[in-house]
Amino acid sequence: MEPITAALAWLDYAAVAVFAASGALAAARRKHDIVTFGFFAAVTGVGGGTLRDLLIGAPVFWVEQPAYLIVCLVAAGAVWAFGFGAYRLKTLLWMDALGMAAYAVFGAAKALSLGVHPVSAVVMGVLTATFGGIVRDVLAEEPSVLLRREIYITAAILGAVVFVALVGLTLSFWWAALIAFTTAFGLRALAMLKRWSLPGFPGRAPPEDA
Amino acid sequence: MEPITAALAWLDYAAVAVFAASGALAAARRKHDIVTFGFFAAVTGVGGGTLRDLLIGAPVFWVEQPAYLIVCLVAAGAVWAFGFGAYRLKTLLWMDALGMAAYAVFGAAKALSLGVHPVSAVVMGVLTATFGGIVRDVLAEEPSVLLRREIYITAAILGAVVFVALVGLTLSFWWAALIAFTTAFGLRALAMLKRWSLPGFPGRAPPEDA
Amino acid sequence: MEPITAALAWLDYAAVAVFAASGALAAARRKHDIVTFGFFAAVTGVGGGTLRDLLIGAPVFWVEQPAYLIVCLVAAGAVWAFGFGAYRLKTLLWMDALGMAAYAVFGAAKALSLGVHPVSAVVMGVLTATFGGIVRDVLAEEPSVLLRREIYITAAILGAVVFVALVGLTLSFWWAALIAFTTAFGLRALAMLKRWSLPGFPGRAPPEDA
Repeated sequence: MEPITAALAWLDYAAVAVFAASGALAAARRKHDIVTFGFFAAVTGVGGGTLRDLLIGAPVFWVEQPAYLIVCLVAAGAVWAFGFGAYRLKTLLWMDALGMAAYAVFGAAKALSLGVHPVSAVVMGVLTATFGGIVRDVLAEEPSVLLRREIYITAAILGAVVFVALVGLTLSFWWAALIAFTTAFGLRALAMLKRWSLPGFPGRAPPEDA
Repeated sequence: MEPITAALAWLDYAAVAVFAASGALAAARRKHDIVTFGFFAAVTGVGGGTLRDLLIGAPVFWVEQPAYLIVCLVAAGAVWAFGFGAYRLKTLLWMDALGMAAYAVFGAAKALSLGVHPVSAVVMGVLTATFGGIVRDVLAEEPSVLLRREIYITAAILGAVVFVALVGLTLSFWWAALIAFTTAFGLRALAMLKRWSLPGFPGRAPPEDA
Repeated sequence: MEPITAALAWLDYAAVAVFAASGALAAARRKHDIVTFGFFAAVTGVGGGTLRDLLIGAPVFWVEQPAYLIVCLVAAGAVWAFGFGAYRLKTLLWMDALGMAAYAVFGAAKALSLGVHPVSAVVMGVLTATFGGIVRDVLAEEPSVLLRREIYITAAILGAVVFVALVGLTLSFWWAALIAFTTAFGLRALAMLKRWSLPGFPGRAPPEDA
C-alpha cells in the first residue's frame, strides 16, 4: 500500500495546484497584480478543504501543513510567468475536472474517517470540491459556477454520494474511491464534451422586487 | 413540558424550511437549475446557525443532525415543483418573519446555554436570524437586506436584546422567549404592514473614490 | 513592562475602532441606515481576527470579550453623528495604515504564541490585517482592495514576514514587533504618498467566457 499512499499524497498536492491555477487564471483575466494572484490561488486551492475542516471540527489542514499554501503560491507564480494560451486553458479545464472528482471523494472520505454522519459526509465532499471556486468567483465578481447551469456541482454530488454509498455497502475504501472518482469525472467529462447543462426553473417566477 | 419541547422541535424545522424556501425563491427568480435551488435553500436554511456554532465553538448542528439538510432539500424541491404565485410569496414573507423572530430567540438561547457572554449572545441571536439570508443575497447577486433600509435586522436585534435582558432579570426561559419572540415578530409585522423603513445616513458623504 | 502591556491593549482597541470607522464610512457612502452602520463597523473591525481565530482553533476573541464589539458600535455611532469631511477621511486613511500594520504583527504574534507553523503565522497576520476590509467591500458591493493594485495587502505581508523572520532569528518580541510594524507602516505610507501601485498581469489573458 505504501506506493499508493505516496501516489495519493502527490495527487492531493496536484489537485490543490490545479485549483490554485484556476484561481490565478481568474486574476489573470482581470489583469490583477501578483499579490491578488497569490490570494486567489490560495483561496481557490484550499478554500473548500478549509470550510470542510471548520464544519467537521478538524484542525484546518493547511495551517498544520503549510506546504499546501506553498503549492498554491508556486501555481500562481507559474501562471504569472507563463501566461495562458487557449491550449493551456483547455488543459486546465480538464485538470480541474480531475481535481473536482478527486476532492469530492477525498472530502467525503476525510469526514467519514472522523465519524461524521454519511449525509453530512456527502456535503463535505461536495463543499471540498466546489467551495473554493465559489469564493473565487464571488471575490472576482464573476458569475459563479453556482449561477450557471453547468454540470459541475452535480458531478461532485454524484461522486460523493457514490463513494459514501459504496463504503456503506462495505466495499473496500480503494474500490469505492476509484468507482466514485470515475463516476464524477466521467459525468463532468461527458458534460464538457457534449455541452450538457441542467434545465433552469421552468415555473413562473415571482417578480424581482418582491 | 414534553409537548412544548416537541412543539419547539417542530417549530425549529419549520423555521429552517421557511428560510430554505426563501433561498429557493431567490434561485427561482433567476431561473436557476435544481442543484442551485438546493444549494441556496441549504445556505439560507442553515447558514445563520452554522456561523453561530462556529463562533461559539459548538459542533455545527446540521453536521450532527443532517435532518436539517433534508428539510432544506425538501423545501427546495417543493418550490421547484409548485412554483410561487404572488399569493404564496406573501405567505412566505410572513412565514419568514416568524422564522426570523424564532431564530433571534433560539440563537441567543443556545449561546447563553453554553455560557456565552450576554452581549455576544445577542449577536448570536441576530446572526442566526439574518446571516443565512445575507449569504443568499451575496451569492445570488441581489441587494441584501443589509443594504436596504428595511426593518428586518432591527427586529432581530430587538428580539435578541429583549430575550437576553429578560433572562438576565431572571424571568423564566419560556416567558422570556415568548415575550422576545412576540416583540421581534410584532415589530417586523408592523414594519411590513406600514412600510416602515429606517432613515438613511443624513450627513455629507465622502466621495466614492476616496 | 506593565505600561507597555497597557499601551498595547489600548492600541488594540484603537486599531479595532479605526477599522470599524472605515466600515461605517463605507455605509455612509451609500446612505445606509444606522443598523447597517453597526453591522459594517463590526464586520470590518473584528472580521480579520475572527477568521484568524477560527482557522487556528482559538476561541473567537470578541465572543469572550465583547468590549471589542462595543468599540465597533461606538465608532459607528461616531461616524453617524459627526460625518466625514475630506479632512477626516485623510486622517482615517492614515489611521487605517497604522491599524493594518499593527494587526499584521498582532495576528502573526497570536498565531506563533499558539504554536502555529511560521508560514501559517504569516498568513494569520495578513488575514487579521486585511480580511475585515475584504468582507466589508464584498458586502458593500465596492471594488475590494483585493481587486485594486494598491500596496495594502503587500504591506501587511511584508510586516508579517519580517516579524516571523525576526522572531525566528530569536530577536526579542518587542524589537521584532517594532521593526515589523515600522516596515509595514513605512511601505504603506510611501505607497500612499507616492501613489505607488503594483503592476497588473502583463501576459495575454484568456477570454472572459472560457
